[in-house]
Amino acid sequence: MAENLGISVKKNQNFSDWYTQVIQKAELADIRYNVKGFIVFQPWSVLSMEKMYTYLEKTLQKKGHKPYWFPTVIPEKNLLLETSHIAGFTPEVFWITTHGNNDPIEEKLALRPTSETAFYHMFSYWIRSYKDLPFKTYQRAQVFRYETKATRPFLRSREFHWIETHCAHATKEEALKQVYEDMETTQEILHDTYGIPFIFFERPEWDTFPGAERTFAADALNPDGKVVQQPSTHVLKQSFSKAFNVSYKDKEGKEQPAWITCYGPAISRIFANVISTHGDDKGLRFPWKIAPREISIVLINPTETLRKKGKKIKEQLEKEEFSVEIDDSEKTFGEKCYFWELKGVPLRIEIGEKEHKEKKLTLFRRDLGKKITIKEKDLLKTVKSIATNFDKNIISQADQVLTNAIVIAKEKKAITEAIALGKIVQCEFCSVTNEGKKCAKWIEKETQAYVRGTRLDETKKVKGVCVICGKKASAIVYIARAY
Amino acid sequence: MAENLGISVKKNQNFSDWYTQVIQKAELADIRYNVKGFIVFQPWSVLSMEKMYTYLEKTLQKKGHKPYWFPTVIPEKNLLLETSHIAGFTPEVFWITTHGNNDPIEEKLALRPTSETAFYHMFSYWIRSYKDLPFKTYQRAQVFRYETKATRPFLRSREFHWIETHCAHATKEEALKQVYEDMETTQEILHDTYGIPFIFFERPEWDTFPGAERTFAADALNPDGKVVQQPSTHVLKQSFSKAFNVSYKDKEGKEQPAWITCYGPAISRIFANVISTHGDDKGLRFPWKIAPREISIVLINPTETLRKKGKKIKEQLEKEEFSVEIDDSEKTFGEKCYFWELKGVPLRIEIGEKEHKEKKLTLFRRDLGKKITIKEKDLLKTVKSIATNFDKNIISQADQVLTNAIVIAKEKKAITEAIALGKIVQCEFCSVTNEGKKCAKWIEKETQAYVRGTRLDETKKVKGVCVICGKKASAIVYIARAY
Repeated sequence: MAENLGISVKKNQNFSDWYTQVIQKAELADIRYNVKGFIVFQPWSVLSMEKMYTYLEKTLQKKGHKPYWFPTVIPEKNLLLETSHIAGFTPEVFWITTHGNNDPIEEKLALRPTSETAFYHMFSYWIRSYKDLPFKTYQRAQVFRYETKATRPFLRSREFHWIETHCAHATKEEALKQVYEDMETTQEILHDTYGIPFIFFERPEWDTFPGAERTFAADALNPDGKVVQQPSTHVLKQSFSKAFNVSYKDKEGKEQPAWITCYGPAISRIFANVISTHGDDKGLRFPWKIAPREISIVLINPTETLRKKGKKIKEQLEKEEFSVEIDDSEKTFGEKCYFWELKGVPLRIEIGEKEHKEKKLTLFRRDLGKKITIKEKDLLKTVKSIATNFDKNIISQADQVLTNAIVIAKEKKAITEAIALGKIVQCEFCSVTNEGKKCAKWIEKETQAYVRGTRLDETKKVKGVCVICGKKASAIVYIARAY
Repeated sequence: MAENLGISVKKNQNFSDWYTQVIQKAELADIRYNVKGFIVFQPWSVLSMEKMYTYLEKTLQKKGHKPYWFPTVIPEKNLLLETSHIAGFTPEVFWITTHGNNDPIEEKLALRPTSETAFYHMFSYWIRSYKDLPFKTYQRAQVFRYETKATRPFLRSREFHWIETHCAHATKEEALKQVYEDMETTQEILHDTYGIPFIFFERPEWDTFPGAERTFAADALNPDGKVVQQPSTHVLKQSFSKAFNVSYKDKEGKEQPAWITCYGPAISRIFANVISTHGDDKGLRFPWKIAPREISIVLINPTETLRKKGKKIKEQLEKEEFSVEIDDSEKTFGEKCYFWELKGVPLRIEIGEKEHKEKKLTLFRRDLGKKITIKEKDLLKTVKSIATNFDKNIISQADQVLTNAIVIAKEKKAITEAIALGKIVQCEFCSVTNEGKKCAKWIEKETQAYVRGTRLDETKKVKGVCVICGKKASAIVYIARAY
């Protein structure tokens, strides 16, 4: 039985099956909901994602974003206002067309695929003067996209849970400053809090968001060598502010179109990377800060005395704001250990007759996979110390993986070989404007990998020629397979 | 200008206009979104409703409910499974029928009007044995109803924000126990935390939820004498568990249909009562626990010295977890006071040159409408003391209003008169089974008021005859106009 509880494949050998098994066995999501592409998020993921939301929202509010709740529906007429945007999103839109007994509704409504065309309609009422700028908003919401690609829980579903921020600015420079702030937020939240390493790229011209002038996006890496696009942030073209009449009176009293930025961290999609980044062959491993429960107390052959003791220790820990679950079930000790390791609880406290008699406790850290025995009276002190250094450790483990995945290529063959090994390739490239599209297409065709863009924190200087076409290089780009 | 900021009508003289003005002027919601019946919730209401969610979710989790996120869409086939349910909800359902360029989707999908038919489909997978029961769930979600009645912000929109709990039980007794727990939760949250007085009724047989065997609902009272239905909780008919195959193996190994209960506190609708219960002629008055900001610091003719001082005091208060906003704008002192009273911030701290010189602070409590002057060094102590007794005071003010609204009627004429005065009428009544429907219809026709049901905490005994038909009375009921 203990065997069935565990994951039957290795994470790095068969990531796809590993991912499916973890989600099912740790009860993160149930894919048996009877609408194609929609899943049910179960308590063990929801508890974690709620914490993820809380950290992100607190940070956004501290940086001056105000929370809104917009309607889930957007009228078709709003979507039609900005042509490149509607062209990009229409194929994916779900349309509400009737109510009740097939009775028509007043007008065709979209289930929001993203909310630019809802927010900017209202921005035109709310923004009057330069004094109103920057106007910084966000909402927590679900978005809906009729995906035709295969869906995978968390990674790609037809409904996902995200935050979207929308801001209006007086100048393009201020808009760009906002985009840098969004990237800092991503660092503070995705990396420093959720523990997910990523690289922030400016996307090539041919890969910008529908309606954006510049698009910046964070790529995280999965064990199968494919990158996952995580938050992206965009400076939108002024065609948006003009279409929606988002303008302000400047200091001279002249009406000016605003510059708009938007940023979209998708909590349920980021959770896919919480699973894949930190998990191991035994299952999940949650960073302390976003663990659904931080501590499990496992009773070994539970008696009334042990139950009482477990309860006392639980209360002691809860008083210090730790979240704790007791396992006093009838399962064997081994099964219980398997279970809580699968569930990814950062710290397990084991209590048996032996521990009780000796006034000792056995602690198991999920990040190190090691047990230590401590005196009962040192419990709080020890737990507090583990709580403060657990994430540092699990994050540095994750960072190492991403760093090791980057390979420099100086010729075509090296690209093909590195991509086949699941690496991210760094190379010199002719151009990230549309002039470079031809070389990018060659790469796609030969390696099924994509030019992800240029790093904003690139430390290297361009010196040579494009690895593909041999023309003078103008950029250092990164190439990877992607979801 | 100060005049325009304020509310131009009296709450108890023209509640409808008062309500509209408060929502617009305090920037709680914007009704200019361009889809009929949908509104944008603005930061000042969202910050409060987020707190309302947090208290409710913590309480539910403490009582053993596990959080889920279900899809926003429900396939038509699920809705069709329970006939009385679909009959009750179909007219209100928004249907998704196409995607992209008018391309058909796999099947007709409902925007959830409520999620019984989504949850119970999954319950059939999750519940196997009596050991799995009670199975207690909840989700935070939006629901959608194609309302044909006039919509009003918060009170009735085509999309609203709620919590729904769904639980499966082994026996009807346990189901009923859950309903009582839901009513306790309502008391703890709606009354003790949000400060809204209500009466919990069992609804008459002719007014049960579609598919429910018994329906219990809390009615709160608006200043116009109409009651608003707030959370309701239901013991569903077993036709639900049978239709969705929600069954369990009992201790003897025999398959049994489960008893299902559901409970639906609608945060955005409850917020309507936060406005109407606590507000006064100057605007909003938030209970401390759910105030978007607890304290405003108003600088009188702000100088650099005062700004510095304001900032210092803000930091001092924030260290103690109070949420604070400084008003150092160029508005007059009077305008600032109007503004923060309109916004309903519980406590205002005023700092001017005089206060600064004397090392004193002026404090204004929104619940009492009174100012006190304190020594600067006593600030934290005083604020903490106000924070702990503010809600007690504002709640007792609210309780008084509801208590005073109840009138006993011993004859038909007394009912008509009391209802015309905006009262809730208590009277003896023939029957709350369908036998009493005729008398209820008479009341509706004559007074435009409804029999809301029987109180579970009724202290009076039935002794006489039905006030309407003169037959022997079997219940004490309450009658009120309603939204």
